[in-house]
Amino acid sequence: MPQLGLLHGRAWASLLGKLLRPPGAVCIGAVHSHSQVAEAVLVSQLKPHQEKSNFIIKTPKGTRDLTPQQMVVREKILDLVVSCFKRHGAKGLDTPAFELKEVLTEKYGEDSGLIYDLQDQGGELLSLRYDLTVPFARYLAMNKVKKMKRYHVGKVWRRESPTVVQGRYREFCQCDFDIAGQFDPMIPDAECLKIMCEILSGLQLGDFLIKVNDRRILDGMFAVCGVPESKFHTICSSIDKLGKMSWKDVRHEMVAKKGLAPEVADRIGDYVQCHGGVSLVEQMFQDPRLSQNKQALEGLGDLKLLFEYVTLFGIAEKISFDLSLARGLDYYTGVVYEAVLLPTPAQAEEEPLNVGSVAAGGRYDGLVGMFDPKGHKVPCVGLSIGVERIFSIVEQKMKTFGEKIRTTETQVFVASPQKNFLQERLKLIAELWDAGIKAELLYKNNPKLLTQLHYCENMGIPLVVIVGEQELKEGVIKLRSVASREEVAIKRENLVAEIQKRLSES
Amino acid sequence: MPQLGLLHGRAWASLLGKLLRPPGAVCIGAVHSHSQVAEAVLVSQLKPHQEKSNFIIKTPKGTRDLTPQQMVVREKILDLVVSCFKRHGAKGLDTPAFELKEVLTEKYGEDSGLIYDLQDQGGELLSLRYDLTVPFARYLAMNKVKKMKRYHVGKVWRRESPTVVQGRYREFCQCDFDIAGQFDPMIPDAECLKIMCEILSGLQLGDFLIKVNDRRILDGMFAVCGVPESKFHTICSSIDKLGKMSWKDVRHEMVAKKGLAPEVADRIGDYVQCHGGVSLVEQMFQDPRLSQNKQALEGLGDLKLLFEYVTLFGIAEKISFDLSLARGLDYYTGVVYEAVLLPTPAQAEEEPLNVGSVAAGGRYDGLVGMFDPKGHKVPCVGLSIGVERIFSIVEQKMKTFGEKIRTTETQVFVASPQKNFLQERLKLIAELWDAGIKAELLYKNNPKLLTQLHYCENMGIPLVVIVGEQELKEGVIKLRSVASREEVAIKRENLVAEIQKRLSES
Repeated sequence: MPQLGLLHGRAWASLLGKLLRPPGAVCIGAVHSHSQVAEAVLVSQLKPHQEKSNFIIKTPKGTRDLTPQQMVVREKILDLVVSCFKRHGAKGLDTPAFELKEVLTEKYGEDSGLIYDLQDQGGELLSLRYDLTVPFARYLAMNKVKKMKRYHVGKVWRRESPTVVQGRYREFCQCDFDIAGQFDPMIPDAECLKIMCEILSGLQLGDFLIKVNDRRILDGMFAVCGVPESKFHTICSSIDKLGKMSWKDVRHEMVAKKGLAPEVADRIGDYVQCHGGVSLVEQMFQDPRLSQNKQALEGLGDLKLLFEYVTLFGIAEKISFDLSLARGLDYYTGVVYEAVLLPTPAQAEEEPLNVGSVAAGGRYDGLVGMFDPKGHKVPCVGLSIGVERIFSIVEQKMKTFGEKIRTTETQVFVASPQKNFLQERLKLIAELWDAGIKAELLYKNNPKLLTQLHYCENMGIPLVVIVGEQELKEGVIKLRSVASREEVAIKRENLVAEIQKRLSES
Repeated sequence: MPQLGLLHGRAWASLLGKLLRPPGAVCIGAVHSHSQVAEAVLVSQLKPHQEKSNFIIKTPKGTRDLTPQQMVVREKILDLVVSCFKRHGAKGLDTPAFELKEVLTEKYGEDSGLIYDLQDQGGELLSLRYDLTVPFARYLAMNKVKKMKRYHVGKVWRRESPTVVQGRYREFCQCDFDIAGQFDPMIPDAECLKIMCEILSGLQLGDFLIKVNDRRILDGMFAVCGVPESKFHTICSSIDKLGKMSWKDVRHEMVAKKGLAPEVADRIGDYVQCHGGVSLVEQMFQDPRLSQNKQALEGLGDLKLLFEYVTLFGIAEKISFDLSLARGLDYYTGVVYEAVLLPTPAQAEEEPLNVGSVAAGGRYDGLVGMFDPKGHKVPCVGLSIGVERIFSIVEQKMKTFGEKIRTTETQVFVASPQKNFLQERLKLIAELWDAGIKAELLYKNNPKLLTQLHYCENMGIPLVVIVGEQELKEGVIKLRSVASREEVAIKRENLVAEIQKRLSES
């Protein structure tokens, strides 16, 4: 399985490699913490020298700026995710940030209240997209596309109460991969699980498990336990909370708030504690109640096939059939899955619940048909990588280990030890830029040499070229290694070639 | 200067290289046209089998989906732009899609009506960002950052009347580079012009010119021509239209709509027809009226210095001092610039006006201070690449030349000529994926060999691995080149190495 090092060169390998160092490793610099930035709330004067309309200068509730340090981490993680999607033959697609309000209506069940609407400024009623799946289904129906494997990386917006500590924001990034089309059963579904494994292994976040269930098994289970059909959706929403809430609390919600008979709840309780491998699938086939339900049998049949395929993919040990897995969204119709990081023994003791989901998805065979004028269905299956959670895990680890991140890629700094050398510096740096070399100088007419060299050390720039009177007279440029402080004189006309040689060696 | 070939390998060089081929070159396939897609408007039934609430299924007015073909073109262009920004030492930054409404208030002059507001759903009043500059200034002030070189690629939204033919959308991508900080004059400004030249040369869009002016020269010109100070902003907005409207129409707007005295308008008319190199700067220093204005003299002094620096950067022949250049935005305070593609002689005859702006920017020294509680200023200068216009130029050229774009990167297809080989295909493809090889198969239990090979030809996949009874018996896999149709048998255990060898050679 491709690891980060293989895909992205040494820099990233070292970056993440260091995450795995034991605590107490040498701290070479502090990561610029976002939370400090977010707390920097100032009162602004909108019109200096005019009326002063004071207001708090901040980002909107539940949103934040992403600092250069965060952007570097994100870029590396997104590169790995997108590489994997492309490895599986996906095409890119982008959709507008907002959709007609009607497009989003009745797709998200109890969460619909979290949709951001745009103000009616004359014209169409619009809402910010809530996920990337509904826009994809709308795209397929609108363009009559019957078959497509696509990925989409983009922001989505949800008006959730931002419990920022848990890394939940109202604006966040989603990375989706979906396969649309009528195919033989479970082959694309198994590929989705394989992709989740490749990405989570590649990111080296620790051990993980993918829980799998099927909406038809859930519906069958509800039916044989005696849940009225009108309550299937709302009970499914309650079951979905089992990752975050105890069974006791979920049972209370179902009985006290949603009016389920206690004995029905208890029958559900017996099922939802079951999890295991393919043998549990076999066991459920024999279950006296479940085996009487046609839907459940269809779901179990597909899961059996899915286990066969993931075994061929070499990832069976990562997959767990879990009857408590529901997934909150209304549009799922078949297999559903969710990847969770397994807590270390120490973590497990602290927080027995709340092992975080880092990827999830499932089959939604009816969604495209909801947009099609004739109701023509396009079966779909897909997954979403929980990159925001992954970003915050990686950022947290880097902070713990005091990892210093370079936020620029500058290779060469152009300096002079003397005054009145701006012209020479400008000529020299243009030559480097034109050769494709990443280069910087200070925007001062006469900066001090020490200031220039300090800048290189602070920014992690490896090479300095120095031009002064002596060099100009002799037709040379000094090339200095910042790390070793070694300097060599190089003929002006050979400078670019020498720099390119050094950079290709490093 | 780095060209596309250098930066992005052969595929892209060939892609753009072919743009330069004469019309009549062989058409090997049609680019999937977006406009066809956008016109595919359907009536949807929201709830099949229930009440049928028909609505038109479409993207919101002025927006569109980006197809995989468009995404490939965009990715390559954005890669080139971002590479250039990084070559100049810029850091990445991201800000939320929306800001507090007050942050955007009074920043955009006459265009403020085009801002998208979010519905008041309880809580803060929010607006979608209108550009990336104001959020950057807000970020600097909020975090008390005094110095920063950053780039930002992101969507912005403007409720303009979408004249889609001209490639203007209500949602579009901006690519900005800005330098904030107190530095010696014109050094960062000159770097901004250098960056624009590097990007436009690298994209090989044809010949271009960067018009340069200074807001202080404009204000000085207005003052000496007799424009009342209260009308500076609105007259500046009129002058900004000179690229798209004739002088006659602009003069009419200033006199009839904005109440300027005709003789004042005519005096302005004498100036705004002037354009030239550094000699025009010298000439304006001697202008009997303009030389009496302190502001104008400051602007002219800076432009003189700017010409000195762009000469050292080797781009002086691309820069033109143009007294008609105004730039519409309120926040500019000093030098302003705009890059235009020069029409070919044939184009010049057809449309003498409307040579499109493809990059623009300027100095805005007061914007950060508008957000700072004490009005502390952070001088800034920056540029924005008009990537949407560039995207549509490149797409149009590719369409004209019938360029076929690969929308996936798949390297190897896994096939079988016989039935009941799904298991072997799945094992084989997992091995390829795990080795980092981009691979696909058909999601069918028993696809026909011809169907599989056709898929490879249609998708441009170069290699096929074939496993059948014979191969299984002999412990080999057949490796087929799609282009040459040559097949060789390779020991199963050597397959991955052989594929990697072939891919590295191609």
